[in-house]
Amino acid sequence: MKMASHSEASLTLEAYLEQQRQRVEERLQALVPGAEEEPVTLHCAMRHSLFAGGKRIRPIFCLEAARLCREATARLSRHSSGNSEESSDIVDISCTLELVHTYSLIHDDLPALDNDDYRRGQPTCHKAFGEAIAILAGDALLTLAFQVLAELPRTPADVRVTLIAELARAAGTSGGMIGGQVADLEAAAGGISPQCLEAMHRAKTAALFRAAVSLGALAAEAEPAQQAAITRFGECAGLAFQIADDILDVESSLEDLGKTAGKDALQKKATYPALYGVERSRQIAEEFIQEALEALEPFAESSGTLRELARFLISRKA
Amino acid sequence: MKMASHSEASLTLEAYLEQQRQRVEERLQALVPGAEEEPVTLHCAMRHSLFAGGKRIRPIFCLEAARLCREATARLSRHSSGNSEESSDIVDISCTLELVHTYSLIHDDLPALDNDDYRRGQPTCHKAFGEAIAILAGDALLTLAFQVLAELPRTPADVRVTLIAELARAAGTSGGMIGGQVADLEAAAGGISPQCLEAMHRAKTAALFRAAVSLGALAAEAEPAQQAAITRFGECAGLAFQIADDILDVESSLEDLGKTAGKDALQKKATYPALYGVERSRQIAEEFIQEALEALEPFAESSGTLRELARFLISRKA
Repeated sequence: MKMASHSEASLTLEAYLEQQRQRVEERLQALVPGAEEEPVTLHCAMRHSLFAGGKRIRPIFCLEAARLCREATARLSRHSSGNSEESSDIVDISCTLELVHTYSLIHDDLPALDNDDYRRGQPTCHKAFGEAIAILAGDALLTLAFQVLAELPRTPADVRVTLIAELARAAGTSGGMIGGQVADLEAAAGGISPQCLEAMHRAKTAALFRAAVSLGALAAEAEPAQQAAITRFGECAGLAFQIADDILDVESSLEDLGKTAGKDALQKKATYPALYGVERSRQIAEEFIQEALEALEPFAESSGTLRELARFLISRKA
Repeated sequence: MKMASHSEASLTLEAYLEQQRQRVEERLQALVPGAEEEPVTLHCAMRHSLFAGGKRIRPIFCLEAARLCREATARLSRHSSGNSEESSDIVDISCTLELVHTYSLIHDDLPALDNDDYRRGQPTCHKAFGEAIAILAGDALLTLAFQVLAELPRTPADVRVTLIAELARAAGTSGGMIGGQVADLEAAAGGISPQCLEAMHRAKTAALFRAAVSLGALAAEAEPAQQAAITRFGECAGLAFQIADDILDVESSLEDLGKTAGKDALQKKATYPALYGVERSRQIAEEFIQEALEALEPFAESSGTLRELARFLISRKA
């Protein structure tokens, strides 16, 4: 199926986000075992967290990065057999980012970690299903992400292994999401330098944003230069996203945010607002967005939607 | 490197197990980030559990299944270009079984699950490093297993994705390890039928044994009939292993076992000894081993080592 790009279809950003969110939602419903399948409790717990109203930002970044790289490649090779059709696997690929993101939220919310009772306005997984099931539901979502990538029906095996390796590195220990989570725990116990704060955000949040666009580019079999540009974009956008998230935690209420607000300060978390104050943090987020937009220059005007998406990351209210 | 088989080299089973264990140990040391690499605490926690003296039974089953299938294929195609050389990736592949097994032990030992203080004579991961780090160390070992398979340097990509899909299914929810763990939790809360007990053991333990030999066979590019035979062997051997494990829990001391003994009864776990008594459980384990040995008949005399390994599963003392 050829998906009209945001700009082609002259959709508002909201309508575009909603349309893409629904594509992701439908595939996630099909990829995760049904709530009636054994073990029922576990599948209910996985679905509780996965379908709690997430914005699906990472999958949408993945879809848009794939579209952009595909179009750029088609333009370069328009006299050859260049193909700008969307791979029918791309929505599945984008969903694996949400599986990994949701697993990380379930484990982060556990009493031994952030001890959060609410997420997206609903009880967290362990509040609804108990700690044991929450731990296993997280494990299951992570495992499923790799299974989905390994079993993609229309993507060549050499691309599939590249996607799996990239996602595993982004989710892993050295410079990856788990490593960032450990740095976060240790910083809350002790204080942090500006350099370490940035490194922590790069690992904890930006690595998965980088993987989101990088998986999209890999699925579109992008040229190395495109791959490098899109990766730099994802990393910078991810850093800006995390700073915006920390600012929202300071400025919002439970009602706005759907999760307990103001917890970072209570838990002495290392954040940009704690280290720089809210105003300077906003500037830093803006600087990262500028760097993200510069990274898109090789794609010129066709990168309009990704640019709008990047701006959206720091202007959202929840 | 061509590895002499147990029978060829006329080693005792103990010497063979020790030799194979050392091969696995060496590769695991290389595959897991060093204890000095950031984040140090996390890598120390991963290594604490991974190098606590495990017998490496699953990797050894994987290595031996690969050898058997390779030799069988070489015999079938001895007039063609059949190659009985061991793939240099096979030890890495075998190590991923141990990464997944260790992650499952770390999470199972957590207070919210089995709440175990000792494992292999040492404090469990959460006793040594705290619950937060133990949860993340388990997550990291699972993630690393998929990364290692995706990045195997000498295995064709189409084989790599098959290995990853097989491991993910064995570790997953429906009929896989996580599903079995949930059934185990729920059975302890409520009682269980003989049919459900067997299904639970198939998922909780036998699935990863099946994956161990199945990954070995896939890596050796075994024929479908060989693959089916070896898979049935692994499943039956895994069931026998779990029954033997439950019997050891009844009959051993902390000193013998390296973990708290008698806990299954205290926690009202659903086990074969609880449902059938020790003597009948021994018979059932023996029956599963007989079925495992029958499954090996297509391999005839060259399956001697795998037969001895199966016998070892139910005769071991710890």
